[in-house]
Amino acid sequence: MLPEFTKQKVAEAALNFAGTGLSVMEVSHRGKEFVAVMDEAIALVKELLNIPEGYSVLFLQGGASLQFLMAPYNLFKSKAAYLNTGVWASKALKEATFFGEVIEVASSKDKNFNYLPKSYEVPSDADYLHVTTNNTIYGTELKSDPEVNVRLVADMSSDIFSRPIDVSKYDLIYAGAQKNLGPSGATLVIVKDDALGKTGRPIPTMLDYRVHIKDGSMFNTPATLPVFACLQTLIWLKELGGVAAMEKINIAKADVIYKELERNKVFVPTVPAPEDRSRMNVTFVMAPGYESLEKEFLDLAAASGMVGLKGHRSVGGFRASIYNALPIESVQALVDVMKEFEASH
Amino acid sequence: MLPEFTKQKVAEAALNFAGTGLSVMEVSHRGKEFVAVMDEAIALVKELLNIPEGYSVLFLQGGASLQFLMAPYNLFKSKAAYLNTGVWASKALKEATFFGEVIEVASSKDKNFNYLPKSYEVPSDADYLHVTTNNTIYGTELKSDPEVNVRLVADMSSDIFSRPIDVSKYDLIYAGAQKNLGPSGATLVIVKDDALGKTGRPIPTMLDYRVHIKDGSMFNTPATLPVFACLQTLIWLKELGGVAAMEKINIAKADVIYKELERNKVFVPTVPAPEDRSRMNVTFVMAPGYESLEKEFLDLAAASGMVGLKGHRSVGGFRASIYNALPIESVQALVDVMKEFEASH
Repeated sequence: MLPEFTKQKVAEAALNFAGTGLSVMEVSHRGKEFVAVMDEAIALVKELLNIPEGYSVLFLQGGASLQFLMAPYNLFKSKAAYLNTGVWASKALKEATFFGEVIEVASSKDKNFNYLPKSYEVPSDADYLHVTTNNTIYGTELKSDPEVNVRLVADMSSDIFSRPIDVSKYDLIYAGAQKNLGPSGATLVIVKDDALGKTGRPIPTMLDYRVHIKDGSMFNTPATLPVFACLQTLIWLKELGGVAAMEKINIAKADVIYKELERNKVFVPTVPAPEDRSRMNVTFVMAPGYESLEKEFLDLAAASGMVGLKGHRSVGGFRASIYNALPIESVQALVDVMKEFEASH
Repeated sequence: MLPEFTKQKVAEAALNFAGTGLSVMEVSHRGKEFVAVMDEAIALVKELLNIPEGYSVLFLQGGASLQFLMAPYNLFKSKAAYLNTGVWASKALKEATFFGEVIEVASSKDKNFNYLPKSYEVPSDADYLHVTTNNTIYGTELKSDPEVNVRLVADMSSDIFSRPIDVSKYDLIYAGAQKNLGPSGATLVIVKDDALGKTGRPIPTMLDYRVHIKDGSMFNTPATLPVFACLQTLIWLKELGGVAAMEKINIAKADVIYKELERNKVFVPTVPAPEDRSRMNVTFVMAPGYESLEKEFLDLAAASGMVGLKGHRSVGGFRASIYNALPIESVQALVDVMKEFEASH
């Protein structure tokens, strides 16, 4: 879900961008109008996340999946550590195995990833630790910045801009745009300049962060329309009060639904530990004894206009994705349907 | 430049896609509405280019620049041959050097790439020959399918869909979308299935064509909005009569301007051989004795609403980009300004 503001601005710019009479899909990415879009998007990312000096912000293509490869290409010398909290973390880990020894410091696979491992040791000679901050399928979220003694790399695809983060704790943050930022096709990268150029490995041009930094995300033609859309969401977020204000809203939204899950007799959350529960994806199933009612509830929700509530096949049940742009009224509406369903059974 | 049809459809789908009430930027790429977009786009590419059995069509991200890397990753065993017709061809060649011996079979660098090398030999043990069919900066274009005795790879970023091609002559064709197809952010790949899996080299997941073929361009989230836009242009092109009809229009457009360049005393084309001249990018400079009038002509053209006419800095002069979507009236308007300029000097 994207803000109405973003959608309106994209619809306008598809026809007439920045008064040029041309579509944002037609103008040169090196023309002053689009350069201003890229510059403003990068500046707003820096401002909203309070990014310190010494970091570069990039808008690339290929999604988090390509970052699974670019991260080790740029940072992996001899050993890397990965925290395995789900299928996306596993995919990131798999790509790193091309480059050398990969240590899985901990995994929550034993319980179908329904918790976040807390006590694990990161080898002090690891080049970095990789974490996935939000696990969309399993409904878990690392809501505070990990403290580690090695470089820290985070895939924040599904919770970036949902709360303040301390960027100085990270060497690399990446995020596919399509959850909290914009449409698929744009990929945000925040990288500590000092972390680069240390592997001794030749890096193919397009996979080298330094190439993209040097050319201000314009080494090759950026995805102009997706980047324009991201900028609109960043403008909307700043207007709303930034990530601190967004976090308050997200906490309020998550509270509404998790409190109902604790109270309601016919549903249970899939993540037992409250501190592990995601504010972006709330996963729950029918309570014991009510399992056969799953389809009936989905039908009732659909009749109330709620789409995409079916949980991922590997978890089952339901998943309410309550990303930044989803208003609290929509969460309240879901809770009302849950109450109604309980009352009728 | 994109067809008005494409721009209108994108503007509509940014707000309400396929009657879902959601933006095309918001729907799941695995939902039936977007799957239909991807399926139809692939089917239309196959239909319009008359692609034989045994080929796969993909919509990926990263532009031609990422294909410079993916092509050798998937096809390069021990030796590759490259035809060097300009800066893009050179960049493609550079990425191949990561994988082994690269033979530059010919280069037109001696004359600032203002011609296409005709007589060159491709080593029979080369894994493939790579060509760039249209060279935007220099205004040259390989307008017929090369006949070679090894696999053939072509970067058709800037002239795909401008004329019929015999796909059976190629093992791999790729094109960034942003000239004749759609907005930047989508990359079209046409690959012969039988050419893959023969290098013996492990390929990172995102760079492996077989991964994307297996998942129908949905291994990771595709750039939904750019792919939707490409589909609209493909629909427009089919309606117009396909690539054969498009070629007739493109020949007519190119004829209008090249004829004027032959006639007009104050301008000369930069590409001497008529058979090498591009139908997509017409490059020309002031004739000897008139060099000082360059800026004056650019100003006159700008006053007539013609933007982007300045030639690339490495060639100088002027470049009229007359891609598929540019109507012949716009070419005629440019010729009128050229005549007017000649008359006043």
